[in-house]
Amino acid sequence: MRIGSVVLAVLLGACLPGIALSAEAERRQVDLIVEGAQLVTMDPERPLILDGAVAIDAGAIVAVATRAAIHRDYEGRQVIPGKDRVLMPGLVNGHTHAAMVLFRGLADDLDLMTWLTKVIFPMEGRFVDAEFVAAGVRLACWEFIRGGTTTIVDMYFYPEVSANELEGCGLRAILGAPMIDYPSPGFKGWDDSFAAGRKFAGEWANRNGRIRPALAPHAPYSVSPDHLRQVAAAARELGVPVMIHLAEDQAELDTVRKRYRTTPIRHLQALGLLDVPLIAAHVVLPAPKEIPLLAKPGIGVIHNPTSNLKTGAGIAPVPELLAAGVRVGLGTDGAASNNDLDLWGEIKLAALLHKGVRHEATAIPAATALRMATQGGAEAIGMGDEIGSLMAGKRADLIQVALDSPRLAPLYDPVSHLVYAVTPQDVVTTIVEGRVLMREGRVLSVDGDEARSAAIAKATQIRNELAL
Amino acid sequence: MRIGSVVLAVLLGACLPGIALSAEAERRQVDLIVEGAQLVTMDPERPLILDGAVAIDAGAIVAVATRAAIHRDYEGRQVIPGKDRVLMPGLVNGHTHAAMVLFRGLADDLDLMTWLTKVIFPMEGRFVDAEFVAAGVRLACWEFIRGGTTTIVDMYFYPEVSANELEGCGLRAILGAPMIDYPSPGFKGWDDSFAAGRKFAGEWANRNGRIRPALAPHAPYSVSPDHLRQVAAAARELGVPVMIHLAEDQAELDTVRKRYRTTPIRHLQALGLLDVPLIAAHVVLPAPKEIPLLAKPGIGVIHNPTSNLKTGAGIAPVPELLAAGVRVGLGTDGAASNNDLDLWGEIKLAALLHKGVRHEATAIPAATALRMATQGGAEAIGMGDEIGSLMAGKRADLIQVALDSPRLAPLYDPVSHLVYAVTPQDVVTTIVEGRVLMREGRVLSVDGDEARSAAIAKATQIRNELAL
Repeated sequence: MRIGSVVLAVLLGACLPGIALSAEAERRQVDLIVEGAQLVTMDPERPLILDGAVAIDAGAIVAVATRAAIHRDYEGRQVIPGKDRVLMPGLVNGHTHAAMVLFRGLADDLDLMTWLTKVIFPMEGRFVDAEFVAAGVRLACWEFIRGGTTTIVDMYFYPEVSANELEGCGLRAILGAPMIDYPSPGFKGWDDSFAAGRKFAGEWANRNGRIRPALAPHAPYSVSPDHLRQVAAAARELGVPVMIHLAEDQAELDTVRKRYRTTPIRHLQALGLLDVPLIAAHVVLPAPKEIPLLAKPGIGVIHNPTSNLKTGAGIAPVPELLAAGVRVGLGTDGAASNNDLDLWGEIKLAALLHKGVRHEATAIPAATALRMATQGGAEAIGMGDEIGSLMAGKRADLIQVALDSPRLAPLYDPVSHLVYAVTPQDVVTTIVEGRVLMREGRVLSVDGDEARSAAIAKATQIRNELAL
Repeated sequence: MRIGSVVLAVLLGACLPGIALSAEAERRQVDLIVEGAQLVTMDPERPLILDGAVAIDAGAIVAVATRAAIHRDYEGRQVIPGKDRVLMPGLVNGHTHAAMVLFRGLADDLDLMTWLTKVIFPMEGRFVDAEFVAAGVRLACWEFIRGGTTTIVDMYFYPEVSANELEGCGLRAILGAPMIDYPSPGFKGWDDSFAAGRKFAGEWANRNGRIRPALAPHAPYSVSPDHLRQVAAAARELGVPVMIHLAEDQAELDTVRKRYRTTPIRHLQALGLLDVPLIAAHVVLPAPKEIPLLAKPGIGVIHNPTSNLKTGAGIAPVPELLAAGVRVGLGTDGAASNNDLDLWGEIKLAALLHKGVRHEATAIPAATALRMATQGGAEAIGMGDEIGSLMAGKRADLIQVALDSPRLAPLYDPVSHLVYAVTPQDVVTTIVEGRVLMREGRVLSVDGDEARSAAIAKATQIRNELAL
């Protein structure tokens, strides 16, 4: 009788896979299984898995394997199929000013210092308040999620407002309030902007959640040496990183040379800012001898190729930075100098630009550019152990990119398409911390129409006041 | 009684606009009216019309005006509404190899001469036949139409096959068969490739339809001086333009210098090729003194910024070319060196690149970049009187670009968005010669799924044979 039952069960299991009783009983229940025709993992041990899947539970990646192996071992309460889709880590935007999306396309084709001092600073003084930041960040969140960006590093005013919006929309972020010697939205100068930025960092430090704080002195030319020393001390005290614009253009180098008889990077070194975790945006003009100074753990450089071209700042020596072991990520900068928040554009441009300017078609190969937007970017912002690749134990930040458009046919190599041919609209699924923020190209955590209407209302007010 | 009727008619007309009897009777019937929230016309007399429309009949633009004025004067058998959409001229892709889309992403990150001689030429010899070209061009047509390109200048084998596909899908094109001293698909060398290219040009010359021929000697380094002279003579005889790759990279300059003790441009001048209508692709490395030679009517230069970066060829001196009065258009080159056929990417890159490399944020303003893809591109390929702007009398090649995505909010200046933020998927309507090739983002004249499947089948065959 007993043997008969076993035989029956085996026979049933063989004939009707749905009732594979014994195997079924052993499968571990997880929140979510996401599949992909190709898994581009950024895990050097096995960079590509064909017909793969990722099991996710409690916001973390539990397993990465072939689809068959995952379904053998796990049962997902939700399963997202991946036919004709690449599954890969979410993108890391290492430098942006999300709320500035409300200035998108308002002032093009101006050099950095003119753009900053004649347009952006005055506009910010006039229009930026908590309501502006909330509307801007909400619209930016929609765009980040739509295009598969899962982590941002943001420097902008009213970071508590940004934090609130980012909590709601589900993105991962490092946020810092700009500290600057000059008047800025809500502040008279250094003392109050530093105090506010420090307060925000203190309140959000050590929560280790999706939203983390940083201290954000604006730049070596807009913050005095004493004030930069204050920042380094506060960063050590609070255990938070510092983010700064660094060696962005020649005007900055000239100012720092004139005032302090040094370069921006040596200047930061002397002030102790290379001894704390540092996210340095731009770094277009490091001297060759300064590059090794940036190669130590804890320091990341964010390459913003579109913004640097658009403002005439120039082209960062990314191949040299990478060769020296510097952790390099990618950023869009704000949409006022880009004019989008599309990291795919930065990946493609990073892969193309350095080839052209040095007449060297092997400079920054496709895989290197993609790494800068994922694992490399995560390392640059000090989160390389937590995000940036599809590996068990990491936070579950991942995206599906649909390759079923005729625009992306045929397919020889998914990395090639991801770098050279994909647009933000090809992303169909965005997941952060295991939460599905976009499904089938529809953003779920932000109402796009509402965000757009609010942005248009703000822009109408700006246009009217400026009599544009 | 008579007065009473008039009063009645006036009252009816005022109360019921649909029965505005007298006005109705005078409205001219046209095939199509297309509307736009903004008309970006590329007509210098009135570059922007708000709430505008274009009346189209028998393949030509009949009138361009405000929506109210168009509907007052014309009755469209079909009307395409334009809420939240820019209406503008279709894009002109001045240099491509459409069928090479089947090699998309097959060989990245190689310098021009390695890519050409070690990969592309051998691959073409092995795989390119009439069936390959038909499948490739059909897929490319889908992508061109999807992204709002309405005219292409194409250099590839089996141009009669391309012509057939392009007739069917409805695009406008100038086509030339590559003539080259070396063996190429279907040919042993110069004599037969020249004869075939000449025959194609002769058969399609003077039809003045959507598909026009050109002679296409491959490049100064791959066609001997005597053979280039033959081309110039044939062009004069047939009354067709010549297209050629010119001054593309340093290796070409070195070869021409070694063989002929001159530069590629001086070489063409000496052989009479600057005295016939000429479409010169790339021109990355003209000597400053040679630039004025290219400024005469009949000569166009096509800037391919993505391809030139990707192959390490370099960056063409576009600001100098434009300043000298050279007619400059934009091209994607083939998808094997890009890796898409997206002209929006070229517009953005053309606007960004020159600002960055010369540290000059005003180099190539947004409007200049957009002009190179429309009216400027049309002039560069000798069609400036026929296409390139929304003006009465021109052929009806136009597109609608939807600006209603949160990605494109807010909107201060449509030209800024078109240059810096739009992607091919934002195009929703593509019209060539008054025929609607895409409506609401759905390509009507090519079956995209079928084209994609055929491309995948071809790629599978290539992968298998190469054991990739």
